[in-house]
Amino acid sequence: MRQSFLFTKTRRDAPSDETSKNAQLLIRAGFIHKEMAGVYSFLPLGLRTLNKIIGIIREEMNALGGQEIFMSALQDRTLWEKTGRWDERAVDSWFKTEFKNGAETGLAFTHEEPLTAIMRGHISSYKDLPKYPYQFQVKFRNETRARSGIIRTREFIMKDLYSFSKNEEEHKRFYEKVADAYRKIFTRIGIGKNTIFTFASGGSFSKYSNELQTICDAGEDTIYLCEQCGVAVNEEIIKEHPSCPKCGKENLSAKKAVEVGNIFTLGTKFSEPLGLIFRDEDGKEKPVFMGSYGIGPGRVMGVVAELLSDEKGLVWPESISPFPAHLISIVSTGDKKASKDSDSLYLKIQKSGGEILYDDRDLRAGEKFADADLIGIPVRAVISEKTPKGKVEVKERGGNSPRLISHAEFIKIACGK
Amino acid sequence: MRQSFLFTKTRRDAPSDETSKNAQLLIRAGFIHKEMAGVYSFLPLGLRTLNKIIGIIREEMNALGGQEIFMSALQDRTLWEKTGRWDERAVDSWFKTEFKNGAETGLAFTHEEPLTAIMRGHISSYKDLPKYPYQFQVKFRNETRARSGIIRTREFIMKDLYSFSKNEEEHKRFYEKVADAYRKIFTRIGIGKNTIFTFASGGSFSKYSNELQTICDAGEDTIYLCEQCGVAVNEEIIKEHPSCPKCGKENLSAKKAVEVGNIFTLGTKFSEPLGLIFRDEDGKEKPVFMGSYGIGPGRVMGVVAELLSDEKGLVWPESISPFPAHLISIVSTGDKKASKDSDSLYLKIQKSGGEILYDDRDLRAGEKFADADLIGIPVRAVISEKTPKGKVEVKERGGNSPRLISHAEFIKIACGK
Repeated sequence: MRQSFLFTKTRRDAPSDETSKNAQLLIRAGFIHKEMAGVYSFLPLGLRTLNKIIGIIREEMNALGGQEIFMSALQDRTLWEKTGRWDERAVDSWFKTEFKNGAETGLAFTHEEPLTAIMRGHISSYKDLPKYPYQFQVKFRNETRARSGIIRTREFIMKDLYSFSKNEEEHKRFYEKVADAYRKIFTRIGIGKNTIFTFASGGSFSKYSNELQTICDAGEDTIYLCEQCGVAVNEEIIKEHPSCPKCGKENLSAKKAVEVGNIFTLGTKFSEPLGLIFRDEDGKEKPVFMGSYGIGPGRVMGVVAELLSDEKGLVWPESISPFPAHLISIVSTGDKKASKDSDSLYLKIQKSGGEILYDDRDLRAGEKFADADLIGIPVRAVISEKTPKGKVEVKERGGNSPRLISHAEFIKIACGK
Repeated sequence: MRQSFLFTKTRRDAPSDETSKNAQLLIRAGFIHKEMAGVYSFLPLGLRTLNKIIGIIREEMNALGGQEIFMSALQDRTLWEKTGRWDERAVDSWFKTEFKNGAETGLAFTHEEPLTAIMRGHISSYKDLPKYPYQFQVKFRNETRARSGIIRTREFIMKDLYSFSKNEEEHKRFYEKVADAYRKIFTRIGIGKNTIFTFASGGSFSKYSNELQTICDAGEDTIYLCEQCGVAVNEEIIKEHPSCPKCGKENLSAKKAVEVGNIFTLGTKFSEPLGLIFRDEDGKEKPVFMGSYGIGPGRVMGVVAELLSDEKGLVWPESISPFPAHLISIVSTGDKKASKDSDSLYLKIQKSGGEILYDDRDLRAGEKFADADLIGIPVRAVISEKTPKGKVEVKERGGNSPRLISHAEFIKIACGK
């Protein structure tokens, strides 16, 4: 994409009411726009990164046997009344509104109730199990405070996967598979090392309720890490269980962290009140055994912005960068040779099926470099009047040593090879 | 996808309160689920078709120079107060709700106000124009009645494109390009012939406000068609202007139709109150000249379901079918040869990168054929014990004459070649 075509501009300052580092950087770089406290829109560069994160998660969900769906935000209160979650004393983050006829409805903050109701039409026998529907869908949560940029928002896309199993044993096998898939997702996104498998209460202390927590100064949670085992317990757990669940060691280190994913065993908490029953091999009717598994792709993007940025701006891992490379043409004199060279390289990349950001704007080199640092694409390539014919000067974002490579080599990078 | 893996089942009857043909068929075939009147969720097959429609629209939007974004549903009322559209006497389809602090917010039914506000940060000079942001985003409309299935819903994904131009002349050129892109989109989706460019009021009668109306018995609109020119006028216009806007002929035929797309000239209606101003080449400050262009992909899916179905079920055009082909294995005796043949063909298709629906279920042939007719994938392929080795019996949905083709030929169809 030519940068002259991209409609967003970088800006020197974030809005004065924006205190979080992730949103400050993402707004300044033109990735997002702040609509209100806790409500953000995604602009072209931001949506590209968000979609790369979603793409990685989708691949891993499909590999688990997930089937993608897309559910409504507006909710039928009668379903939620059956589980006791319509009541605002049970759930205080509802946004509620009403239809023209005065009937109350709410905006889903999660989808256990309506999905359990849907599955009643599709599950009747043990032969129909297990099943794993998932979606990427906008959730609404009426947060009292929202001060962490896109890490905690009042409206956000969530990947929510649900498992419907015959019994706890079948459930546990899938639960472990999801845990592995989650580790893989965060590794692919570039925050695997900072993301800790954390034991959380699932009613009672059990290895079957877990959070994925990314250690990060902007975190609102505190986790207690066993540095040796690389696992942690969360704040709910630490009082009753002040030791590593793996090695039993007691001196756990308190760390600020952001919950980037969670995996819950739901058991029959939803299938019983909502009547999701199947006939088992033994001929008996039983409630389906459920689990749910969330990741917020926007939150993950915020955590990456917090963790991997520097004083100059964002630093994207290759896997979720809006583009694999940023090509900058520098024309310091009236000579058009350099811009002709970069134009022709850009056209070759497009023909090869690659997509890069190409800074073809009529600006000083210093402004272009500052923008490139702020936007944070991992590979920066420069063609100036000094660049030898057929070459391009390449440097990693945050790196110091530029090197000359051939156009053919750069085209490979641009095509993600 | 193996049909034994797909979690949805077909059903004999739609819910008794569902009176529209499109939703009845789509529910029975397992494409959608009715949450409440006017609120539907998309199940795996339905989401696949919806995403194919979205993919076609996205390609055409990008070809126009569109840049994809993703905006919030929750709205800052102060922006809408500036244009007078917060008031429910001006807009009666708001869903409004409130934040914890008691401040009112609403769910966007369109996005002119917040996008105009965003663009203030990115447009300041004539050099920044024109720009064409667009999105696929969930809109909310508090419809009094919602009886047309997924054709008129209270929550729906909308493609909304907005144009920001220097002046009316630049705007008009783009407006015509969008009109062409829209014709192309509906042709690709398979309803081009039924979709009529319809003249609608744009304040005053003007060729610069148009609807794309698909002639369809389920339509809630009436259009007045000039059969000769293939254009129409809508009900707002017919009284003042009871003749064809092209040839002037007066005997227009009244037809029921569904508005599948619209293109509006907005002028400076939003840029003036919201202060979206640019400095023109002549040094003067001017408000940006705007347009907006909508298509509802879910509504389009509903119209296709209405128009192209028959008494047996849905009939998808190849371009938006959930899968290019439906392979059915028929094992009438205990012999496993036929299912081995179809299994091996299915594996070959997967290796070639194709995706089909493969009915590997342990069901009678009649049930499988009835399901295939209901689901409506355009190409049905059968392997039974009678099928000669290396061949597959292929028939078009709705067609009567099956023919034998080689596995290699079928793999091409399955890969969309």
